[in-house]
Amino acid sequence: MQLLSQAVHGYLANSSMIRRMFEAGIELRKKYGPENVYDFSLGNPDLPAPAEVVEGLKAFAKTADQPFAFGYTPNAGAPFAREALAAWLSKDQGVHLEASDVIISVGAASALNAVFKAIFNPGEELLTFAPYFVEYGFYVSNHGGVLKTVPSKKDTFAPDTAALEKAISAKTRAVLINSPHNPTGAVYTEDEIKEICALLERKSKEYDHPIWLISDEPYRFLAYDGVTVPSVLPLYQYAICVSSFSKNLSLPGERVGYAAVSPLLENRDELMAALTLTNRILGYVNAPIIGQHIMVAALGASVDVDIYTKRRNAMAEVLTDAGYEFSMPKGAFYFFPKAPGGDDKAFIEQLTKECVLGVPGSGFGCPGYFRLAFCVDEKVIRGSAKGFANARKKFA
Amino acid sequence: MQLLSQAVHGYLANSSMIRRMFEAGIELRKKYGPENVYDFSLGNPDLPAPAEVVEGLKAFAKTADQPFAFGYTPNAGAPFAREALAAWLSKDQGVHLEASDVIISVGAASALNAVFKAIFNPGEELLTFAPYFVEYGFYVSNHGGVLKTVPSKKDTFAPDTAALEKAISAKTRAVLINSPHNPTGAVYTEDEIKEICALLERKSKEYDHPIWLISDEPYRFLAYDGVTVPSVLPLYQYAICVSSFSKNLSLPGERVGYAAVSPLLENRDELMAALTLTNRILGYVNAPIIGQHIMVAALGASVDVDIYTKRRNAMAEVLTDAGYEFSMPKGAFYFFPKAPGGDDKAFIEQLTKECVLGVPGSGFGCPGYFRLAFCVDEKVIRGSAKGFANARKKFA
Repeated sequence: MQLLSQAVHGYLANSSMIRRMFEAGIELRKKYGPENVYDFSLGNPDLPAPAEVVEGLKAFAKTADQPFAFGYTPNAGAPFAREALAAWLSKDQGVHLEASDVIISVGAASALNAVFKAIFNPGEELLTFAPYFVEYGFYVSNHGGVLKTVPSKKDTFAPDTAALEKAISAKTRAVLINSPHNPTGAVYTEDEIKEICALLERKSKEYDHPIWLISDEPYRFLAYDGVTVPSVLPLYQYAICVSSFSKNLSLPGERVGYAAVSPLLENRDELMAALTLTNRILGYVNAPIIGQHIMVAALGASVDVDIYTKRRNAMAEVLTDAGYEFSMPKGAFYFFPKAPGGDDKAFIEQLTKECVLGVPGSGFGCPGYFRLAFCVDEKVIRGSAKGFANARKKFA
Repeated sequence: MQLLSQAVHGYLANSSMIRRMFEAGIELRKKYGPENVYDFSLGNPDLPAPAEVVEGLKAFAKTADQPFAFGYTPNAGAPFAREALAAWLSKDQGVHLEASDVIISVGAASALNAVFKAIFNPGEELLTFAPYFVEYGFYVSNHGGVLKTVPSKKDTFAPDTAALEKAISAKTRAVLINSPHNPTGAVYTEDEIKEICALLERKSKEYDHPIWLISDEPYRFLAYDGVTVPSVLPLYQYAICVSSFSKNLSLPGERVGYAAVSPLLENRDELMAALTLTNRILGYVNAPIIGQHIMVAALGASVDVDIYTKRRNAMAEVLTDAGYEFSMPKGAFYFFPKAPGGDDKAFIEQLTKECVLGVPGSGFGCPGYFRLAFCVDEKVIRGSAKGFANARKKFA
């Protein structure tokens, strides 16, 4: 007798490799002590939240004995929070947004699901550039859509618009981009994004239905060397920006994110009504009320970006000294080097033996590479040098 | 050019009636002043959260400047929170539960979605007794399942097991019960629940697949006249209990709920692995971290149930004096009287003219009745007496 749905049964069978890696990490810590394990496998920000977050929380706690302090908010978010978010996003994204143009969600993951539920008919396709965050595949499949990938440009991981054009068909409902990019650290330029928008404008007309451009931007605040991260909202009427406060406010566990729609879209109220509905019926109901208060108190604040810059440079030094090939990340907190020997799973196995944890590129739809998250103390980065050098030698 | 998916487009068209009612309420408040509008339409608890909630929040705030204070927790919940929840549920439900038998969710709505995603194959059916909370239909349809309803017993709204038996087929994947019941206030007895369990045990064997029993219990703490609310977990191996702290801790906006599985099920680890996965891929990721801390601090605490008892009695008096027919609620905070004249929508329209707001039974799959939520101040209940009497006279 089968307990589970066939789909979930299959997912569980396939996800056991990642679980085995996670369990390997626990084993290593037990065996060698946590200080001798160099874990670059998770994008879990280690910097404390900015002071504004803590102050906002304390201010909220003072009013928490009142009726409705923890009450339901409207499905799209508390009005005061939507207004504050719209005002801040207007500055951040260089467009004028009203409260009615944004919806507050249970983290970016729920915003993406709410958007996909609102727009996908069964069998329609979402296109994204590989490598990519594999959860996107689950999110679109939850709502009957299908993820198709398009390769990024070699080495730089820039978007390949020509390849995207070839992949677009009558079935294409949306294109998803993610810049600054997980897992490669690439940041798309304004010209690259404009090229994508022009293509989608043309293809929307050709197929006589909107092809949405969804921009997933949790690392927007984190770019290096003075690089700017362009906004999609002023460039395309069918653009939706999705993000969260997980990284810039080190707030991932409280689950506060949002979706904002381009003010160029005339009948955007229809989309916002749909997102309000899908946010409700998917069981999110409303973003956590305490998180909404914290967000308003801390809009515009940020963790210390200088610390990430130093870590990036330290990691680059370690990898260069050990002879790894990689493209220097321009944003986010990941490196995506080539796996020495070419077999990313075999290489990660070797690296694990050196007590250094990373994730094979296969886990991002891009075999032959591996991902290192550098949201860890600089000591961990420096301490991993020997392990990286040893693993590299095995595949020389 | 169609912006939205066809399904969501259809949902929006149909939900406009409820929206119009909501807007009517806003209009009435503007026109007559909020103190002259008697709103029984929403189940939004108005009692302040218990002191334990506020203290728990303040204690958490003191540690909020530490790294990872707001970090991701495992998808099934923080280990300390799962352990505390399992210990409390063991007492509350009269079974021995381990931390691994419970998962913490983004409110009960997300727990229900995570369960449905884990077990439903396309086209399989969920059965529930009408009247019912209409969101169940969306939740199961999100994952390809189909909601079918079975009538409750007349007047008492007790479960009709004979009708349930007739409705069960090879397509039945799960039965959902909700006691104390929204919208009727019925509380199922232990004998009634045992009868359902015996039926499902037999039908599971007959069809050679588990028929899950999902018990949605957000009002478990709220029963009147010394009535006890039985637990399903000790009675059936395929029982799953789903609930939240929205009502007993007045915490609906922070979104903390759970699912717990019967320890009678031998291979329940398979279900828990599935729920951990579906909780992640549906975009909930983890229950809000602050909410998890608050929950642990306030387990076993409760809002003042005596206040609800007084309100129930006041509401019964008002309705009796005005000549309404109703079954006295044994739990939860709803009355579900017969609509005078028989047409619930027409009656609610009349009631709205008297500045009294309720919800037609059609909104719960049960025309001819209407729902009143008495989680409002006793003054509001007393003040509505004239409006109820006037509306009743129109349909005499």
